[in-house]
Parts: sequence; C-alpha cells; structure tokens
Amino acid sequence: MPALDVAGEFETIERLLRPLAHPEWGRGLADDVAVLPSRPGYDLVLTKDAMVEGVHFLPEDPLDTVARKLLRVNLSDLAAKGAEPFGYLLACFWSERCGWPEREAFATGLAEDQAKFGVHLLGGDTVRTSGPASFSLTAMGWATTGKTVSRSGAQVGDLVFVTGVIGDGLLGLRAARDELSLDAERIEALTTHYRTPTPRLDFADVVRDLATASIDVSDGLAADLAHVAKASGIGVTLNLNVLPLSAAAQAWFDDRVDPQLSLEDLACGGDDYEIAFTAHPRHEEALRREAERRLLRLTRIGEVTAGSGLTVTYDGKPIKMARSGWTHG
Amino acid sequence: MPALDVAGEFETIERLLRPLAHPEWGRGLADDVAVLPSRPGYDLVLTKDAMVEGVHFLPEDPLDTVARKLLRVNLSDLAAKGAEPFGYLLACFWSERCGWPEREAFATGLAEDQAKFGVHLLGGDTVRTSGPASFSLTAMGWATTGKTVSRSGAQVGDLVFVTGVIGDGLLGLRAARDELSLDAERIEALTTHYRTPTPRLDFADVVRDLATASIDVSDGLAADLAHVAKASGIGVTLNLNVLPLSAAAQAWFDDRVDPQLSLEDLACGGDDYEIAFTAHPRHEEALRREAERRLLRLTRIGEVTAGSGLTVTYDGKPIKMARSGWTHG
Repeated sequence: MPALDVAGEFETIERLLRPLAHPEWGRGLADDVAVLPSRPGYDLVLTKDAMVEGVHFLPEDPLDTVARKLLRVNLSDLAAKGAEPFGYLLACFWSERCGWPEREAFATGLAEDQAKFGVHLLGGDTVRTSGPASFSLTAMGWATTGKTVSRSGAQVGDLVFVTGVIGDGLLGLRAARDELSLDAERIEALTTHYRTPTPRLDFADVVRDLATASIDVSDGLAADLAHVAKASGIGVTLNLNVLPLSAAAQAWFDDRVDPQLSLEDLACGGDDYEIAFTAHPRHEEALRREAERRLLRLTRIGEVTAGSGLTVTYDGKPIKMARSGWTHG
Repeated sequence: MPALDVAGEFETIERLLRPLAHPEWGRGLADDVAVLPSRPGYDLVLTKDAMVEGVHFLPEDPLDTVARKLLRVNLSDLAAKGAEPFGYLLACFWSERCGWPEREAFATGLAEDQAKFGVHLLGGDTVRTSGPASFSLTAMGWATTGKTVSRSGAQVGDLVFVTGVIGDGLLGLRAARDELSLDAERIEALTTHYRTPTPRLDFADVVRDLATASIDVSDGLAADLAHVAKASGIGVTLNLNVLPLSAAAQAWFDDRVDPQLSLEDLACGGDDYEIAFTAHPRHEEALRREAERRLLRLTRIGEVTAGSGLTVTYDGKPIKMARSGWTHG
C-alpha cells in the first residue's frame, strides 16, 4: 500500500479513532488530553505495553487481530492485578504497509474488543515510521483502594496457581508460522490464541480478594514465577508434571519423544496471558469454587517456600532447565 | 553500536529506568502497573505523544535531548490545559544505534528533566525495533476538578494570546540541520530550542484561571488556532505583523526579501511549544501582569469573531496563506 499523505493522519483520527472515544473522558479525541475524575474509594491502575511487527506479531498477521492483541495484552496486566479496565491511550507508528484498509481493520478490531471488554479510547497519537509497524498502548483500570495485588506479597506456605492453560502462546506462534503438523482444527485454535489471547478479566476480582501475589504470564510461566519469587523474597516451586495443557497442546505433547524437555518448552514459551498467583492454602476451596462458577480451569502448580528463586521439578525431583528465558528474571 | 542481547532489556529497566521511578506510585517498575490514589478535588489529565527518529528528531540528535524533548512535548500539552504534571509512562522502541551508552544518555536526560519539572516515571515497556528509534510517552497531571481548559470554549469577542515566541521551532530545525547562515550564538540558541523546548508550565495556572480555550503550539500556530476555531465553532483572526520573534528569529527575518511569506513560514512551522489561548478582554490586564511576574513574554495576536475558521491578516488585510499545514485542521 502507498503511504497516506499528512491529511491521512487527521482522517485516521477523525474517521477511525474518534468513534472509539470514551463518551465523557476522551473529549472526542479533539483535545490533547483525556481528563478523568478521581474516584473516591478507588486506585487508578495503569499499564503500558508496546508491540513491534516482526518481534511481537508477524508481518502477515491481519491488523485487526494486531489491534486486539495489543489491547488484550494490556488488559491481561490489569486483570492479573485485580483491576477493572475502563480506558486506554494509543500510539500508532504506521509503517508503509498501513494504508487506509489496514488502518480501518485496526480500528475495527479495537471497536470489537472495546465492546467485548467495556473499555474506551481516551486519546493518543498517530505518526508514521519508515520501520516496522509499531504500537504502544497505555491501559487504565480501577481497583479498590489499596487492593491492587503486587508481585511481592507471596508468603512461605502459600500455594501457586495458574488460570487456563500453559503453552498455547508458544505453540500458537509456531502454528501461525506454519511450523506444526497438527490437524487443521487444532492449528486454528492455537493460531487464534496467539493472535487474540483472552485476558482473564473474569477472574480479576477473585485474584484481588484472595491472592497474595500475582502476575500475568507474558514472559513465560517460569520467568514470571521467578519474577514473583524475586519480588517477594521467597522461593517458588513449579511442578512441570501438572502443567495444564489445551487439547491442541496435549496432541502436540503426545507426539514428543522427550516429555520433560517439551514441558520445559511450554513453561518457558510466554504469550499465554493467564494469571499466575499465590494464595494461602485456606483459600484453595474458594478459589476452585470461583473458577468453576466462571467455567475457568484453575491448576495448583506449586508452592511458596523459604529460600529464593524458582525451583522446577519433574517426577518429584528438582531439575535444571535446559531452556533459558526465565534466567533473565 | 551492536544491539544488546535480551538480558540488556532487563538491565535497561533495572539500571537505567528504575532510578527514575515514582517513589510511591511506580512500584519500583517491578510490577506491570502503576497505581495512583484518586485525589478528591482533582481531575486526572492524560496525554500521549510519540516520536520517531527521522520524523520528530534527527538521527544525529543526542539521545539525552531526544528523551528530554519527548518528555517536554508531553508536558507542554498538560501546561496548555492548565494541569500540573506528576508522572509518566514510557515506551522505548530501541533501534540498532541504541547501545548501552545511548540508553544511558537517554535515562540521564530524563533524570535531569524529572528533577527540573517535578515528575516521575511510573512504568512502561522497552522493546527493540529493526526500524528507526521510536518513543511513546503518556504524561499525567492533576487539574482542579472541572477546570481543565479545552479547545472548545472560545467566545466571540475574546482576545487571542500566545506565550513566548513563534518560529524558533521551525528555525531550530533548520539550524540543527545546518541550513541557516546566522552567527554561532544564534544557531546555538535555535538548536537548543529545537532539541529541548520549554513547556510553559509556569503559566499553566494562569491559563487554567483565565483562558476560555487553549492549545499548545505543536502543529504550527496557524494550524493550532484553526483547531481552536473548529472546536469552538467560531472564527479566529491572526495578525501576522505582531508575531513575537526571538532575537535569533528577528536576525533571520531581517535578511528576508519577502516579509509576509517569511512570517507565514514561522506561523506554519510548528514545534514551538508555546501556549496559544483565548480570554475575555476584561482579563487582559491580569494576564499581562501575571506574564510579567513570570518574566514571560505574552503577545495579543488576534481575536475571536463570529464566523468560522482561521483568518490570517497582514498589514491589516486578510491574506490567503501560500503555505499549507494549517489547512489540514
């Protein structure tokens, strides 16, 4: 696509982005700022994630799913902190490939997910780049005052849980790249997860009320649990044998020759956008009940111990992970 | 510079960005979010501007000034709205040229300006790009509840003012590109303005109390006044003859053969980061007094009229601007 001229930037805002604006606080995207009233009883929670074509999404990914992923990975951060999202600011760095139809697709993807997740655009900026298409989004949510769950509250004796399944992020990337030999339905499911992961907003209130520490699984389950261990100043064990797998991941796993290494791959893969969290054992039953009510899988994957860092076990024994990734934590 | 490996991203955050974190609300940049208490009596004001190398700054610009400009252009938006900034979130898209010394310079620039303007980093993201270095910043400030000045409040009969001088943004770009023949001191002054413009935060409270509509001069004075005219549904006149010029701009202007065209250039240039605003004539004296107290130049450049759009006059007659830019408004 040829690049649009300068007027295209105004059109992009007026025709594509303005319809997404928060009816009250976004000022119709016609001012330089968004203005939010302060809400007594609530803390404002903010997060900002950036995505670059070729790094965080594939050049062939449709821009509507790129937009939805951008929004969802940010909402995932808010969900893991027990916050309820309401809005976001957006910076688009349009590349040469982002002509009008692509920008329209991007806005359409945002509109769909705005409706789905109850958020509105509050402002931002659109510029052009000679490099790969890139995006940055600042998402905002409310949390009950003082109730935003941190990474640092894990206590010795707590149990470690994760929502949903682990590994679909990594396998989804491979599926989108056509690197997996699975049947079409599973490839489709994995690709969909990679392109439009589901932020666990329906579990945010449970995390807020019952978790001692939490994180969304973006760097990889092992890496993210290592972040929690470090921030909390305690040790975390992760039992690879109980890693929850989707049907597609299970099908992939069943064909592997080295099960341990395969599970390590999935635990280090990232892009799962589940919530990993710690909680006191007395809350286990309530957690399971709440997950069941929400039709959400919840798996106890380890525990919090004295000591430091992450210990990964397989068949009951501590192992040294062959994969890197989490070692950077 | 060679690109840093993945561990470099963690180091960038831990060693360069963490020291910039808001002591209370930034969570040491060790969590995925920033959490702000709500403040009764205040509105939260948010703005987000993005910058791309080769578009918004020059490839040879030192990264400490790039960082400072990024922060300042966002603070300028807050100043024009009458808000007092307190923090920001940052997304860095590091290019190949951004090795450790460059990232350090970037953080040093931010630290300097954090101290200067009383703001703190609240969170963000750093990623790598194969394209030009790019940055996105979300700045936040407080404004007294309901007192955030919009673009849309201008009333027929109001006067139009601008702080500081106009044209140093455009001439500064040309100076930084070595395209001007002026003496070294003036080149230096213009280049400094281009690289590190001064957000008019010291006039924000005056704008908040006395302006009916306001905007920061980033697209160009003519374009920005056209934005105000459009948003307010009124007409705005701009008298080119009284355009306030810096000593350097005056020296440049004195060498021109076509004064009208030269003034048009400056009025369309952009990147000035002054505040243009409208106010009732009864406030003119107070405005002048407050500007004087702050050692700030304030110029009455036009008025608000019935009708629509921007009318530019020269020698008392309406002219058709040869330059584009503001026509996109």
